[in-house]
Amino acid sequence: MAKTRVGKRDTAAKTKAAGTWHDAVPSRSMQREMKREALLRAAVSAFNRRGFGQTSLEEIAQSLGVTKAALYYYFPTKSALVAACFDRAMRVANDSLAAAKRDGSNGRDKLTLMLRLYLKTMIGESNESLLLTEEHALTPADRAQLVEQRDAFERELRNLVKEGIRDGSIVPCDPKLTVFVLLGAVHWVPKWFTLKGAWTDAQVSAAIGELLDRMLSTSPALRLTENVAALPAAG
Amino acid sequence: MAKTRVGKRDTAAKTKAAGTWHDAVPSRSMQREMKREALLRAAVSAFNRRGFGQTSLEEIAQSLGVTKAALYYYFPTKSALVAACFDRAMRVANDSLAAAKRDGSNGRDKLTLMLRLYLKTMIGESNESLLLTEEHALTPADRAQLVEQRDAFERELRNLVKEGIRDGSIVPCDPKLTVFVLLGAVHWVPKWFTLKGAWTDAQVSAAIGELLDRMLSTSPALRLTENVAALPAAG
Repeated sequence: MAKTRVGKRDTAAKTKAAGTWHDAVPSRSMQREMKREALLRAAVSAFNRRGFGQTSLEEIAQSLGVTKAALYYYFPTKSALVAACFDRAMRVANDSLAAAKRDGSNGRDKLTLMLRLYLKTMIGESNESLLLTEEHALTPADRAQLVEQRDAFERELRNLVKEGIRDGSIVPCDPKLTVFVLLGAVHWVPKWFTLKGAWTDAQVSAAIGELLDRMLSTSPALRLTENVAALPAAG
Repeated sequence: MAKTRVGKRDTAAKTKAAGTWHDAVPSRSMQREMKREALLRAAVSAFNRRGFGQTSLEEIAQSLGVTKAALYYYFPTKSALVAACFDRAMRVANDSLAAAKRDGSNGRDKLTLMLRLYLKTMIGESNESLLLTEEHALTPADRAQLVEQRDAFERELRNLVKEGIRDGSIVPCDPKLTVFVLLGAVHWVPKWFTLKGAWTDAQVSAAIGELLDRMLSTSPALRLTENVAALPAAG
């Protein structure tokens, strides 16, 4: 069977007309998104391994076997790459928050669920997460945007703490400090967690969820998981 | 009154013979230590403000009004500077641990006291703390040494958790995960805390101590501090 060669114009047309080839091949825009994600993951992995300051865009391109020019197409600067990392983290955070608000039964339940979902996505297969400490590398505009998004997100979490205090699921506490401590406990995990280690992402996020829940609960558990590795590996 | 000029040889002699000039002037070795500390603090402050990757040794020297050569005398490389930062953090950690083991009444009490002392020194006046994420910048030898020291320190903390479970002050839990979470919550604080903010180092470390204590305690408090700023500002 003769293979049909897809020229530049055909591909462009395909991007618009969904369903061509019965979607056997990802659309061009989807391929672009997949490449961008692959680059992002390679970058995060290199930053985590060698440190942000010690990793050049060139090394990242090399690790993927692509040219520097290909990388520049997606991320013209290291700063743009960091902005994309923060962007992804904020998206995961807000998605987790939305799911937790939908499914949680009370303030504490929503808060714990949010932290658990957030952590699991952060450290799981598809989102090898960067320790989010390189804000200095952002442009002033990107940084201002991040601060704004993060402030809004933290405000929402403080509201969940207040909701929990009101509905009696969370003990009286300082919502601002409490949210800082919860997020700190969660954000530090990528520093020591690796998918190649003894614990899975699901085990770690479930066990950390338990610990953080107990910190605030008006009905604190009498015992916590004594062996993280014995928890369900997936889920 | 004629001022006595202190030549190079006199100073060297003074270093050995303590008590000359009735200690009105710090000894030469003490002055050296003070300068080294000042450099370390300036470096940490610059790293925290602009990020490790974006700060050169030259900028640090400039911020103190000294020459690059003066800085090189103490820290010939950025890697040596980072090693000194980690070294200081490990010293503070081990000092806090020793004090807590001496003064604490049971496993949980020792653990909470340790975290509180550690945090307070880390974020207080004299120890403006670097987010400890730049291990990549260490030489392999320095890094191996750090990992060894840190492993020993974490082992000691796990032993405190086990002691607390045995003496009934801490609920059954996984000591390894618990220590990771406790240290994460504490190590993230320099990321958001500033001595110029609404809360003092003493307030923050006391309130975080309460939260972390409650996470593990077999007799969890019914309420936590509701307004961190209302805690004693010092102490």
